[in-house]
Amino acid sequence: MTPEEFRQAGYALIDWIADYLEGVDRFPVGSPVAPGDIAGRVRAHPPTGTESFADILEDLDDVIVPGLTHWQHPRFFAYFPANISYPSILGELASAGLGVQGMSWVTSPACTELETAVVDWMAELLGLPAAWRTGSGVIQGSASEATLCAIVAARWRASGGAVNLSGASAMVDLVAYASAQAHSSVEKGLRIAGIGTASLRIVPHDANYAMDPDALGALMAQDVEAGRRPFFVAATVGTTTSMAIDPVARIAPVAHAHGAWVHVDGAMAGMAALVEESRGVNDGLDDVDSYCTNPHKWMGINFDCDLFWCADRGALLGALSILPEYLRSRAAESGAVRDYRDWQVPLGRRFRALKLWFALRLDGVAPVQAMMRRQVAMAAEVARWVRADERFELPAPVQLNLVCLALGAGNAATDALIEAANATGEVLFTRGVLDGRSVLRWSIGGWRTTEADLARAWSLLTSLAPSIDAPRNPVGTDET
Amino acid sequence: MTPEEFRQAGYALIDWIADYLEGVDRFPVGSPVAPGDIAGRVRAHPPTGTESFADILEDLDDVIVPGLTHWQHPRFFAYFPANISYPSILGELASAGLGVQGMSWVTSPACTELETAVVDWMAELLGLPAAWRTGSGVIQGSASEATLCAIVAARWRASGGAVNLSGASAMVDLVAYASAQAHSSVEKGLRIAGIGTASLRIVPHDANYAMDPDALGALMAQDVEAGRRPFFVAATVGTTTSMAIDPVARIAPVAHAHGAWVHVDGAMAGMAALVEESRGVNDGLDDVDSYCTNPHKWMGINFDCDLFWCADRGALLGALSILPEYLRSRAAESGAVRDYRDWQVPLGRRFRALKLWFALRLDGVAPVQAMMRRQVAMAAEVARWVRADERFELPAPVQLNLVCLALGAGNAATDALIEAANATGEVLFTRGVLDGRSVLRWSIGGWRTTEADLARAWSLLTSLAPSIDAPRNPVGTDET
Repeated sequence: MTPEEFRQAGYALIDWIADYLEGVDRFPVGSPVAPGDIAGRVRAHPPTGTESFADILEDLDDVIVPGLTHWQHPRFFAYFPANISYPSILGELASAGLGVQGMSWVTSPACTELETAVVDWMAELLGLPAAWRTGSGVIQGSASEATLCAIVAARWRASGGAVNLSGASAMVDLVAYASAQAHSSVEKGLRIAGIGTASLRIVPHDANYAMDPDALGALMAQDVEAGRRPFFVAATVGTTTSMAIDPVARIAPVAHAHGAWVHVDGAMAGMAALVEESRGVNDGLDDVDSYCTNPHKWMGINFDCDLFWCADRGALLGALSILPEYLRSRAAESGAVRDYRDWQVPLGRRFRALKLWFALRLDGVAPVQAMMRRQVAMAAEVARWVRADERFELPAPVQLNLVCLALGAGNAATDALIEAANATGEVLFTRGVLDGRSVLRWSIGGWRTTEADLARAWSLLTSLAPSIDAPRNPVGTDET
Repeated sequence: MTPEEFRQAGYALIDWIADYLEGVDRFPVGSPVAPGDIAGRVRAHPPTGTESFADILEDLDDVIVPGLTHWQHPRFFAYFPANISYPSILGELASAGLGVQGMSWVTSPACTELETAVVDWMAELLGLPAAWRTGSGVIQGSASEATLCAIVAARWRASGGAVNLSGASAMVDLVAYASAQAHSSVEKGLRIAGIGTASLRIVPHDANYAMDPDALGALMAQDVEAGRRPFFVAATVGTTTSMAIDPVARIAPVAHAHGAWVHVDGAMAGMAALVEESRGVNDGLDDVDSYCTNPHKWMGINFDCDLFWCADRGALLGALSILPEYLRSRAAESGAVRDYRDWQVPLGRRFRALKLWFALRLDGVAPVQAMMRRQVAMAAEVARWVRADERFELPAPVQLNLVCLALGAGNAATDALIEAANATGEVLFTRGVLDGRSVLRWSIGGWRTTEADLARAWSLLTSLAPSIDAPRNPVGTDET
């Protein structure tokens, strides 16, 4: 492809993207294809000639789009919001066009220094602890990776660094703690780090699905009594299923009394701190060891963009830094620069700071704050609708932009409702389970979601829900 | 930013990228900035208003570009090639514009099915074992991550799956093997997985820096004798420092005789299999457990794009799959689809298959093959120049596109030459160390690199190198 062909194809693709995003509500939200449908439209063997960009654009429409679940659709209410903003898309494009590697400061100083700067900006915008506002943060690909980094840093500290040499034998007595509402990445990260599920204590939660700090303390005391070493507590700010907020300010002192590292996974709800009235999600952060939150969720920055702050940088670098000859540099040895490869699992890194820089300068946070406020109000409105319909219940408190609802008729009815609603292509919800109870998670987070979208979705749910006279499941068989 | 503003800004950015890439040779290859220079040009606090896209473009030129080490520069001879092609940039843009998440099949079937298809294409183009050509591969972010996945899969298999529950206590007797020339990600991955360096045996290498399979066998036998369990062997196809090719066909049977998993890290040299005459880099792959290679290096696909094939998918999924309620789907439970989140460390994933699909359809592999052939010939030519100058030596065999050279005058002279050459901004080389000997690594891999660029670089080196009459370091102080 010549530079001139690139220019023409690039303009066309920019237009295609704007057309796609502005018209995304014309598609079914969840892809209706069956397994193998898309594979069947892709040729079995690699091309032997070349094709035109017009062919590619046509196939984007004919092959790719039908196989997409449209995360940018205004009635995408599933999983979590993964908004993308126009400035952020351009930031990704700039990163792709520069094609530099940010593994070390010396491999492109701007890649490292701009990252430090914009992560500091984010710390200020989020009102994070003052101690973190100058250079304690880094961009990770995902909260899963941030959690894994926190785990290995905690493991390093708990073993006095011995784990680097001794490995498993320095780890056999370590115990970790999280509630059943913690994200699956906590168990996965522990597993990768060689902490089996037998060494993960599930801390009981309260009626609101938030971790019980007293129960945590009791479990830790039992473990210490039995000769085990508590080393890691994962608290969650905005649990996946119901957006519960673990009481970090009460958890941290309990954990620290037993010498454990406290990591706070604020992947979803941490971004709420962009608005003053939700800043309570930061309560207790002054006292924790590490924290992450995801601009690639509610804030509208393209995936991947997770922000990870680590109060104990020595432990993080102790766990993750390796310095072969070919990565040495005078700048790094002088201590005047940071090499972010030592703050993460992989070696290579993209220039991800650009998308935050573009978005914060071109749009600023005002539109994000307005969206968040609108959507918190929308969730409250949906909750009012749910309360007013006697067929429905709210099994968990409504927090921020998430409503969990269920049918009084039982799990089978709720599951059937979710399937029926999703099958229309009008909406997409995710199913969750709270202490054995099926819930329909209604996550309200799209840039383009309007009151009319909510009304349409609610109308669909009320029309699909069984009438109150329908037979109910016998009590006790599939409910908690 | 409105859709119309996005279109205008997008066109302008496409033009800016083409201008940047077509004129990249006007910049010094390595960024000349001092630590803090770029940070000093970025405001200390987040913006409070909004700015125009013209401001951003201006700052790309004034703030970012001066702080870049230009990986696309024709005289970038450092590290490894990280070519980006125009179709691949467009593939990244399309991925950013769609904003879908490919963690599960159901979260966008096209994202999963296109990935399976293009990875199969690559297996065919690379001439990989027939057994891997239908659905055994996945795109990872980097070889570091692929290696970590291989390690945890090997650990799972060695423990009969017990590690998921028992963690460290199922791992204490495990031992891993690699040569001193293996990439740092092997040690880092082992460390993350809880295998300390005391359980990593450094297998001796031969005079060509390739692993010695007999020495591997002897080390493994010793460990078995001592009651330890060999579980993982990392072989390298194209070592970082000198592009040595470990003899995989001889390593695999030795490793398997002791029950160990064989992972082949072909991050750099594996791509050479795109040309028939270099297909020997695949020798022995039929008999290994996992393999990775990087289109984001020599092939010209934007970082990140690592291809990872795993012959024992059960072990990989056993190690990495976790299924909370909110990630369940009927499609996955039917077994008819794959959920790539279970093939990797993080949960979330970008639509990375698009860039391979764009590049293979728009440009095909013919230009890549032509570039590789040209550059293998260029490396041979450079080696001839080096041999003809009595001040220089070739401490390692020239393999593919990499030449390692050193001054006979000793390490201090070689180090000084690298620094002096890089300081001109005309070229960028990396320093490596081979058995105590400093080498200048000359990696020839840029799309835009011409014979004239090589001649200019060689002229620079010969002018900067001390004359043969200069005092030599006393033998034995800083050489092997």
